[in-house]
Amino acid sequence: MTTLRLGIAGLGTVGCGLLVLLRDNKAIIEQRAGCVLEVTAVAARDRSRDRGIDLSGIAWADDARGLATRDDVDVVVELIGGEDGIALDLVRDAVGAGKHVVTANKALLAVHGTEIARLADVNGVHVGYEAAVAGGIPIVKALREGLAGNRIKRLYGILNGTSNYILTQMGQHGAPFADVLAEAQELGYAEADPTLDIGGGDAAHKLAILTSLAFGRPVDFAGVHVEGIQQVTPEDIAFAAELGFDVKLLGIAEETDHGIAQRVHPCMVPLNANIAHVNGVFNAVEVESDQADVTTYVGRGAGGGPTASAVAADIIDIARGLRLPLFNMPAGELRDQPGAPMDRRFGCYYICLHVVDQPGVIADISAILRDHAISLESLLQRGRDPGERVPVVLTTHDTEEAAMMEALKRIAALDVMIEQPRMIRIENL
Amino acid sequence: MTTLRLGIAGLGTVGCGLLVLLRDNKAIIEQRAGCVLEVTAVAARDRSRDRGIDLSGIAWADDARGLATRDDVDVVVELIGGEDGIALDLVRDAVGAGKHVVTANKALLAVHGTEIARLADVNGVHVGYEAAVAGGIPIVKALREGLAGNRIKRLYGILNGTSNYILTQMGQHGAPFADVLAEAQELGYAEADPTLDIGGGDAAHKLAILTSLAFGRPVDFAGVHVEGIQQVTPEDIAFAAELGFDVKLLGIAEETDHGIAQRVHPCMVPLNANIAHVNGVFNAVEVESDQADVTTYVGRGAGGGPTASAVAADIIDIARGLRLPLFNMPAGELRDQPGAPMDRRFGCYYICLHVVDQPGVIADISAILRDHAISLESLLQRGRDPGERVPVVLTTHDTEEAAMMEALKRIAALDVMIEQPRMIRIENL
Repeated sequence: MTTLRLGIAGLGTVGCGLLVLLRDNKAIIEQRAGCVLEVTAVAARDRSRDRGIDLSGIAWADDARGLATRDDVDVVVELIGGEDGIALDLVRDAVGAGKHVVTANKALLAVHGTEIARLADVNGVHVGYEAAVAGGIPIVKALREGLAGNRIKRLYGILNGTSNYILTQMGQHGAPFADVLAEAQELGYAEADPTLDIGGGDAAHKLAILTSLAFGRPVDFAGVHVEGIQQVTPEDIAFAAELGFDVKLLGIAEETDHGIAQRVHPCMVPLNANIAHVNGVFNAVEVESDQADVTTYVGRGAGGGPTASAVAADIIDIARGLRLPLFNMPAGELRDQPGAPMDRRFGCYYICLHVVDQPGVIADISAILRDHAISLESLLQRGRDPGERVPVVLTTHDTEEAAMMEALKRIAALDVMIEQPRMIRIENL
Repeated sequence: MTTLRLGIAGLGTVGCGLLVLLRDNKAIIEQRAGCVLEVTAVAARDRSRDRGIDLSGIAWADDARGLATRDDVDVVVELIGGEDGIALDLVRDAVGAGKHVVTANKALLAVHGTEIARLADVNGVHVGYEAAVAGGIPIVKALREGLAGNRIKRLYGILNGTSNYILTQMGQHGAPFADVLAEAQELGYAEADPTLDIGGGDAAHKLAILTSLAFGRPVDFAGVHVEGIQQVTPEDIAFAAELGFDVKLLGIAEETDHGIAQRVHPCMVPLNANIAHVNGVFNAVEVESDQADVTTYVGRGAGGGPTASAVAADIIDIARGLRLPLFNMPAGELRDQPGAPMDRRFGCYYICLHVVDQPGVIADISAILRDHAISLESLLQRGRDPGERVPVVLTTHDTEEAAMMEALKRIAALDVMIEQPRMIRIENL
């Protein structure tokens, strides 16, 4: 039996999870891969840390970049993270040296994916990145292979487990965002600096990768419209439920008349949508294609085991001889397609206003909406409290984002407005 | 660019769907596959039938078996169906002649899968069968590749869209089985002879394939315990809802202390289970594995487009050079593992009894359950009607199937029993 030699850079949760997986499932992996997977070298920041794993017989590289050129490494597994720095150097060097690469690094691919794809083509190597998107869910494989006969029309997903956990908790307990975030941090579901998760950046990285894969387009992270969940309130989630919706942070990529739209923002989704049932730290992706119609993929988006499962699948693919272009076609054939401006998003909107309860408020708001040709779908004004603060909730029929934004600006300027209006887009899934 | 030449046997819904897919998505498929896919020969029963597709330039084989040995065919696509006859001859001959095979034939693989796997190993060819299980859902790929680093513990799924459609309709409209079946036949969701669908045989074919794939075991269709949905009543579904469950026809494969269990039967599943939300003709598979934990796959299990999508994915895999052993390891390494007897199934049960409402009935039933060490979890006796027919619904705590069956036999023999007791197993998903 031949041996495939692995050099692993990064021994955090995922790196250690991978070592455990390769050890515990050695026998079945060898049967399936048809070869022995041997970790010959590792690199990590702290050599002295006890990771509870036997590293004897494995070479230790003080500089991860060194893995790229070691003679005893066939596949470089990059688990360092970060869009630049050592991770980028390592991946570039490894591919340049003709080594296959497996990476869990979404930021790196979202920003430098096209360059890496080109480099991989030139050097004839395979770059696996199943672990970079939605952890244990084999969604890259589904798009790159399982649906390879399809034209993709739209895909959307819950791509960040931390945000989904927070929204789920807010909905179930009516607790405000800040409290739930603090609790999530205590439980280890949110990082000390949660910006990338709750601000939508992490989901945007993943979405940019999926978009290129689905639409055969150079990766365009800068073109992703990103909003996080920081402004969502328990009140919004309660009103959503009353209106037949749940609130989810989605990444959406779709072909529109104005180009390829890429957006990450809180969405109201129908309570009976598949994706509405995906709660807590779970991720989900739904793909709409011309032949297979809708297919849905759900699983754990993070954690040592699920992420290591994805890394292992990529390694086994390489062992079995799979060689695919990174974004599913040679990098030179990726087609620049215009990005759809967010202004042109066409759909329904939920608006929550806190106003002083006095005669004429609804008339003023209605007049503004009429001026922008926006048609009301429903209006909820719960309770009366003359002269005091009351919430008014509106939902609109389909309209263009630009019109909605103009109208919101004018509504926000009304004298009766107590706080900034809150808007959540309603997605027809 | 090289050319991969296809010989397609069978031009029904799927065969025609495949020709349309290959025509409409020719450009992207060539980019992704890195080669031209050319249909060089077809075989079907009726040459004169107008299929609305241009077949000019494609050779017509009067005997499908002839495709196996044509010099101008690299891949034989078998869409004839049936576990024996022409389909089996064709697949055997094609593999024997060193041609790759793509098939949608679940019956053939469920019965002859191990033989075909062995033959494919010897001849060094790839057999793709994504279309044989759950149509457009890339579940074979998920198991064979995406989760290749995992030990599978259990998998279960809605593997038959017709049955799921009927159960969904029964639940939503309270209509009896026979009426809904007749309606499904009118709509084309059920065949004129629906036995294979509603009797569970079709799901059992698919389950037998998935079991081998997941557990590395020769295919054992005869070992699948099969019950259909013919005995399920709207009353059962209504009681299920009251108890917090939905009724689904599931195929379940799991590792137990008594061996590998393979069973297809109606199940009560918790209303908040992922699979409970999968309604109508959709299929779904959930896989529980040691590393990735639970992953869920949902999509259309039948129809020209979805099935053709799966066939196309297999063809593109072959074009890209993928060569995998049929059940994910060389056939010679598949390990005979004992099948768990159905008698040893351990779990909860729902029982619906129609009895004469008279004093002592519950005492008699309770005594029988006690004799078999079966513990009651709940009891519903709706309405009183002394001397007349009333339904009594019981659910049990975990118990062994053998004890439950013995108890049911004795309960069925009680004088007060008006009709045969109905039993549905409760699955803890």
